Amino acid sequence: MKKMLCSVLAGLSVAGVAWAAEDVAPVKYVFLFIGDGMSMPQRMVTQEYLNLTEKRGLLINELPSQGFSTTFAADQFITDSAASGTAIACGSKTNCGALGVDANGNRLESIATVAKKNDKKVGILSSVTLNHATPAAFYSHNVSRSNLYDIALEVFDSNFDLFAGGTFGDINGKNNPNTKGNILDLAREKGYTVTTDKAGFDALAPSDKKVIAVTPRFGEAGSMPYSIDMNDADITLAQFTQKAIDLLDNENGFFIMVEGGKIDWMCHANDAGTTVHEVIGLDDAVRVAYNFAQQHPDDTLIVVTGDHETGGLTLGFSGTGYQSFIERLKNQKISMIEFLPLYSKFKNDAKATFDDVKPLLTEQFGFKFDGDAKDPMFINEYEAKKLSEAFSRSRGNGTYSANEDKLILYGGYDPFAMTVYEIMANKSGLAWNTFAHTALPVATSAYGKNAEKFGNMSDNTDIAKRLKTMVVKP
Amino acid sequence: MKKMLCSVLAGLSVAGVAWAAEDVAPVKYVFLFIGDGMSMPQRMVTQEYLNLTEKRGLLINELPSQGFSTTFAADQFITDSAASGTAIACGSKTNCGALGVDANGNRLESIATVAKKNDKKVGILSSVTLNHATPAAFYSHNVSRSNLYDIALEVFDSNFDLFAGGTFGDINGKNNPNTKGNILDLAREKGYTVTTDKAGFDALAPSDKKVIAVTPRFGEAGSMPYSIDMNDADITLAQFTQKAIDLLDNENGFFIMVEGGKIDWMCHANDAGTTVHEVIGLDDAVRVAYNFAQQHPDDTLIVVTGDHETGGLTLGFSGTGYQSFIERLKNQKISMIEFLPLYSKFKNDAKATFDDVKPLLTEQFGFKFDGDAKDPMFINEYEAKKLSEAFSRSRGNGTYSANEDKLILYGGYDPFAMTVYEIMANKSGLAWNTFAHTALPVATSAYGKNAEKFGNMSDNTDIAKRLKTMVVKP
Repeated sequence: MKKMLCSVLAGLSVAGVAWAAEDVAPVKYVFLFIGDGMSMPQRMVTQEYLNLTEKRGLLINELPSQGFSTTFAADQFITDSAASGTAIACGSKTNCGALGVDANGNRLESIATVAKKNDKKVGILSSVTLNHATPAAFYSHNVSRSNLYDIALEVFDSNFDLFAGGTFGDINGKNNPNTKGNILDLAREKGYTVTTDKAGFDALAPSDKKVIAVTPRFGEAGSMPYSIDMNDADITLAQFTQKAIDLLDNENGFFIMVEGGKIDWMCHANDAGTTVHEVIGLDDAVRVAYNFAQQHPDDTLIVVTGDHETGGLTLGFSGTGYQSFIERLKNQKISMIEFLPLYSKFKNDAKATFDDVKPLLTEQFGFKFDGDAKDPMFINEYEAKKLSEAFSRSRGNGTYSANEDKLILYGGYDPFAMTVYEIMANKSGLAWNTFAHTALPVATSAYGKNAEKFGNMSDNTDIAKRLKTMVVKP
Repeated sequence: MKKMLCSVLAGLSVAGVAWAAEDVAPVKYVFLFIGDGMSMPQRMVTQEYLNLTEKRGLLINELPSQGFSTTFAADQFITDSAASGTAIACGSKTNCGALGVDANGNRLESIATVAKKNDKKVGILSSVTLNHATPAAFYSHNVSRSNLYDIALEVFDSNFDLFAGGTFGDINGKNNPNTKGNILDLAREKGYTVTTDKAGFDALAPSDKKVIAVTPRFGEAGSMPYSIDMNDADITLAQFTQKAIDLLDNENGFFIMVEGGKIDWMCHANDAGTTVHEVIGLDDAVRVAYNFAQQHPDDTLIVVTGDHETGGLTLGFSGTGYQSFIERLKNQKISMIEFLPLYSKFKNDAKATFDDVKPLLTEQFGFKFDGDAKDPMFINEYEAKKLSEAFSRSRGNGTYSANEDKLILYGGYDPFAMTVYEIMANKSGLAWNTFAHTALPVATSAYGKNAEKFGNMSDNTDIAKRLKTMVVKP
């Protein structure tokens, strides 16, 4: 996939097309929210879920400027989070896997770096690890997102003021021959205030010059827990965002990037309920910025985008036709990640039967195995057969008509968990088509100063091109 | 599904939000193109297909104003073409199935009627029958889209100047106790010039005051043939559009609605190749209007939208992961509708085997059953097994694990044809999730005078609300 051809309209000068040439006013406070794996399907299902269950809307869908952005990488029609993160952060297409360098390996400069050079304070927040692709695109320059430890070391080169959310992948550099030890220890040596519990987080103050604030409890792979799984002891993305504002507000303003990084992860796993709550978690963080913007209406810009769609989520399903029951997702109590350990005792018990696991499904998903067959959550014969078959396969006892069937049905995930979540989605009138990303453009939304520059159809690189012109000194 | 809640941002006055209150300038020439079943997935796959196979772009994706529109009906999150057509044509939500009346049955007024009242000429064009839901929404007032004959009679009440494309459903009123005979005969009696062949079409001139121009060759159900199946003897949607301009141009201007109605039909059937060519056919028609707009740059507005997404088309597939091969759709030579009769001789021959039908698949889809297994179009063991199984099922010999499997796999269509087209799509890195519509918002695009009013996120009713203010006298 190469760049979009515009031969037909070459020479057009209608407002909205010619981004690069235009002069724009600098903005003191700039927020960029990125929903990893979040495109219009993820946003619309969440909007409708909130409409049906809480009679309220999704803020990001109500922001006054709305457009969409193409996402393709330099080398693929379907991008990854490194290439798309680099596009959004630096304004250049690159190959999948590359961070902060173009397709030829040339170093790129991110919005965050431009902001820092212009004396703004900079915060990089993510619900996944802080050296994962999307946050790393704002400070790293590496041909491979897999070089986690080297990427983490670039945090210290960045001179940015705040990193917050998950911890670091390969934090001790076990995979790196030149390891210098634990990244958080190094950070402390270099004068960073590092917090790993809630008390430390609560105590953070603007007098802490450089801060790394890590979630007190981990989800999988060093990330924050899923919104659906959080309790009051956790720090939400919204709370991290509020803290970023409190720490970084200063007379020169700030640039704060907040990634809802785990929308993508549960879209890979085709877990619709967790996806909805992750989008709500990101929306709640946007609301914090929105409230801040009310106090600084002439000086604040909020941009919300996604890096790509994940999962091929469809607001419709062949089995439910024209009917939708998105409110049924409310029956789902936990993410697949928290479900798996609860299920493992059945999976690993040779004597366990499918009947034994039914109470767990009733408790966590509201599935009804007895009673009124017209109950929306009643598991019919067809669904029960699918669950029972997947239970066998999950325990290594099942067969497949072909290896391809296994791949297409479960994508390498646990067959039973996948089937439980598939039925949960299907009962809600939703379906998925892939365990990978798709090339659907993402929605891009904006509020505040210069918000109108982010409507219309654009490419993901346009976001960085435009924001770089706004994070400069007045 | 009720209307979108906007409580959070109530009172916002940023440009783009408050549609209704704004003053806009009248426009002399107004084109409204509607892709039935066309949302961003259909547009993006076509853009990428053209990029890969012809190194060109899709005009509708390059128009300077781009936004998206929500589509929900008064009674359902997933709309139908009657409710969405009424929303786009008249500016009000209504129940699925209703045409030109609101959810309480109250009569609505369409953009076309407002244009006619303001002395504009009006043309209603569609690649499906002229009393099908979308075109009918512009002139009919009926609580049910199924009342085809009564709807067709409303053509004569409309006083519109041109109807062109397919013929009429239930044209003789066989299902209507009060039939007045053949609709085209009635039209001739009422002074319409009616053409049903290409010579008649070519001879049409502005001196023909009222015109009904019907496709010389039919696709299924009285529609125009699919673009992929057309030959030089057919009249394309672009040619109908050019004729509409030639016939309707006058000093008071015109309103022309052009529907690409069969995008939807082949999305229902999950036929990706035919879908792409239908979108190209609509794009070609938009190009005719675009060329006209170059000659009348200050007086022309072109709006392009869809009424809903159909099929849950995904630009990605679990079996191909991050890879796309959309150029492979070029191997597909015919629509499912033209494939079915070619296949029927095998389907209905008790002695035929799956091997017998392979040459047809090679000829029409480029499927390779011998030779290099690395050939992109080579049918592997898994795919061959799926085809062979579907061949048996198609001939009434196959079994299913459950009725639900049959529904979810084939949606009531021929099992063999569905499997052929599924493999064609999957080999191209595409997949579908439903045989019905989905609630994905549609892309709305515009070019020319007032085009900027159609960007941003909006509801489908906003299109009519806005256009009604523009088709008035200067």
